[in-house]
Amino acid sequence: MTIDPAATVAPPLPSLDDPSYRAGVLEMLGLLGCGHYLAFERLVSESALSPSLGKRLSIARVADDELVAYDKLAARLSALGADPTEMMGRFLAPLERYHQMTTPGDWLESVVKSYVGDAIASDFYMALTPALDPETADLVREVCAESEHRTAMVAEIHAAIAADPRVAGRLALWGRRLLGEALSRIQTLAAASDELARILLEGGPGLTIDLVDLIDGLTTAHAARMTALGLAA
Amino acid sequence: MTIDPAATVAPPLPSLDDPSYRAGVLEMLGLLGCGHYLAFERLVSESALSPSLGKRLSIARVADDELVAYDKLAARLSALGADPTEMMGRFLAPLERYHQMTTPGDWLESVVKSYVGDAIASDFYMALTPALDPETADLVREVCAESEHRTAMVAEIHAAIAADPRVAGRLALWGRRLLGEALSRIQTLAAASDELARILLEGGPGLTIDLVDLIDGLTTAHAARMTALGLAA
Repeated sequence: MTIDPAATVAPPLPSLDDPSYRAGVLEMLGLLGCGHYLAFERLVSESALSPSLGKRLSIARVADDELVAYDKLAARLSALGADPTEMMGRFLAPLERYHQMTTPGDWLESVVKSYVGDAIASDFYMALTPALDPETADLVREVCAESEHRTAMVAEIHAAIAADPRVAGRLALWGRRLLGEALSRIQTLAAASDELARILLEGGPGLTIDLVDLIDGLTTAHAARMTALGLAA
Repeated sequence: MTIDPAATVAPPLPSLDDPSYRAGVLEMLGLLGCGHYLAFERLVSESALSPSLGKRLSIARVADDELVAYDKLAARLSALGADPTEMMGRFLAPLERYHQMTTPGDWLESVVKSYVGDAIASDFYMALTPALDPETADLVREVCAESEHRTAMVAEIHAAIAADPRVAGRLALWGRRLLGEALSRIQTLAAASDELARILLEGGPGLTIDLVDLIDGLTTAHAARMTALGLAA
């Protein structure tokens, strides 16, 4: 994001009274809510890759946080006069495509996916917050805050690499695939709706979010997370 | 369940102070908890058979009730000095076998499964309550109480039959398969552990649960539910 150097005062934040901005916010909240719902669903179904009830349950806790986030977004869409499942349902097909392209082959891939895949999405929405009205920005920050349950996943990956160092190479490749698919989805979504593209890529008056800068930022943050997991980015 | 006609007073209820009874209760709570966990997991993953976000979400609500029930059972196992995931994990393989044998082919089959399949399990545990100590019996009744979210499923099946009466025959066959697999699992589980079999089939002193009577009762209750759904039993 860059601020117009010609501006002598901070640009005004966008307002929900602007119909075009409001339409974009509704779509962005729909996209975010649908993403949280599918994260819930996929976390639960992919957790079945573990033969351990305890491990499955730890994923169920993470998934439950996604459903709580979904509920907050649905409530906000209702408060803004939109039908939550209709607005979110618009994004079901493109977001399911991401999950179909990144169906994990085993438990460790599912752990890496739930750790780094969901984080890429959160980074993406967090990068939009400077271009949003304060109330919407607060909600996005709230639902994108990292679940405390996720920290257990880092230990899980470290333990797996310690037990068999060869898994690190396979999981590093998997992480690159997750990033590639996530970036591909973001570009597809930005192209799918004018109102959404305005939010995703232009922000409010006087603000611009550069897609190249955005992708650079997501890639850098992803690399740091892969390193934290003990994996090459 | 029949009460010994020779008894002139009500037989004493079993006590958790009896080590053999206590071991059986721990296993039964483990079985019940594992069943609730898998019901949660399967409800969520099978809900993806619906292309509608609203319908998936209605299933997610039912699933969440299963996780609440799981938590109550885990807390009780901990209070009794058992490791909940270890005790429940013992039953993961046989209970997953039920779900593998009853993987729905489409959304309507998943609705019927979540309505009648889980109810067969609840009926089974409810039939055991007269042979349990009062505290355990109360917990079983609490976690087996029908979720209010389930009532929407009846309307869903009625609407599908109204739209295309041919689905009734297919779903009737599906319901019979669910009952058959459930009864088969109950018999396998009763044979798997002496302590569990004592709870499942013998009950407390002076009480007997007859397997044939039990299966008759489950079959009758299943038939009534199928009729309520508009399906031949």
